[in-house]
Amino acid sequence: MTVTITAFARSPDRGCGHARDMRVRWALEEVGRPYEVRLLSFDAMKEPTHRRLQPFAQIPTYEDGDLALFESGAIIMHIAEHNAGLLPDAPQARARAIMWTFAALNTIEPPIVDLEITMIIERDKPWYAERLPMLQDRVRTRLGELATHLGDGDWLDGAFSAGDLLMVTVLRRLIGTGLLEDHPNLGAYVARGEARPAYARAFAAQLAVFTGSTASR
Amino acid sequence: MTVTITAFARSPDRGCGHARDMRVRWALEEVGRPYEVRLLSFDAMKEPTHRRLQPFAQIPTYEDGDLALFESGAIIMHIAEHNAGLLPDAPQARARAIMWTFAALNTIEPPIVDLEITMIIERDKPWYAERLPMLQDRVRTRLGELATHLGDGDWLDGAFSAGDLLMVTVLRRLIGTGLLEDHPNLGAYVARGEARPAYARAFAAQLAVFTGSTASR
Repeated sequence: MTVTITAFARSPDRGCGHARDMRVRWALEEVGRPYEVRLLSFDAMKEPTHRRLQPFAQIPTYEDGDLALFESGAIIMHIAEHNAGLLPDAPQARARAIMWTFAALNTIEPPIVDLEITMIIERDKPWYAERLPMLQDRVRTRLGELATHLGDGDWLDGAFSAGDLLMVTVLRRLIGTGLLEDHPNLGAYVARGEARPAYARAFAAQLAVFTGSTASR
Repeated sequence: MTVTITAFARSPDRGCGHARDMRVRWALEEVGRPYEVRLLSFDAMKEPTHRRLQPFAQIPTYEDGDLALFESGAIIMHIAEHNAGLLPDAPQARARAIMWTFAALNTIEPPIVDLEITMIIERDKPWYAERLPMLQDRVRTRLGELATHLGDGDWLDGAFSAGDLLMVTVLRRLIGTGLLEDHPNLGAYVARGEARPAYARAFAAQLAVFTGSTASR
């Protein structure tokens, strides 16, 4: 049975790979699982057909036979549980790898997304100059703590895992903000993730959607 | 081996149960696992000793023999995987229950915490009156979608699961904002969670910490 995921028909980030289908593509590439992609317009995402799969009208979704899932973190957990390559076998190391998926999504990503949203929708507000540094500081605190934990390690806890996959995609959201540059070890960590062949295949696939949609305009 | 978790020595919410140790206590009560609590002052949380357990200087942590975990979502996933009562046995239902843990923490909680933080630290800012409705609207959108999904169901997907446990604790953060009152089915859902004996035991245990710390002042 081929897996089908959903993604934006027109990438809002122009193919930079920040949409959350990138994580799922990368995970599927890491475990060598072929997949198909159903592209959705912003209108189609809000239709009842899609909401039956994803009550919050977002992408990605994941369909495998009669199993349908949403939430990129949950999809990656499912892929990692049913295919080798994203979670260690040793029980304690496995629990810690799962812990890092939650840390990526719940401790590191929220202040980053908050900063992102503010930079997009509050840029012209009179309070922007005062709020921006507050939000940058929240991100800086978390990056400092993460950099201290990572130290000179290659990955967050031993071998590459689903936790690293998610953390790298979360940190990539900071590209262009200058914040990642405070911590060379985090920059090297992101580069290490991007250098994985599975990452490259996933990135190319999502970029091709943007390039294709641009070409067909 | 007894499990040890960490919690605030002095509850910032005066024992309302919004601190994230409440989720872990509730999960441990649901599966009938006894636990001990190590209380930490805000200063102790920032010490190297605690940061070795929790690089981001937060609570709760979870120690069971030589396994140490942080992130309430990851701790609950670990408890649910190793004890009966929080995840269904059927593989597809199990995957969907895990999906709802991620939905609670990644789709519903972030706009709620964002609203909370703003109500605490931006209340006296000149832009508060303009930002507050924006943040309330983001929460309202998610609540509307969640209410539609829940419909007249008792729980999010069949039987009570770790996904409901987390969703109920996330929605409880809205108590006092008036936002939950738009959706009687969500209010009833939260009440259904609070009515569980395991919830009541966990709530009483975290309240006792606050009552005790107040009495000893």
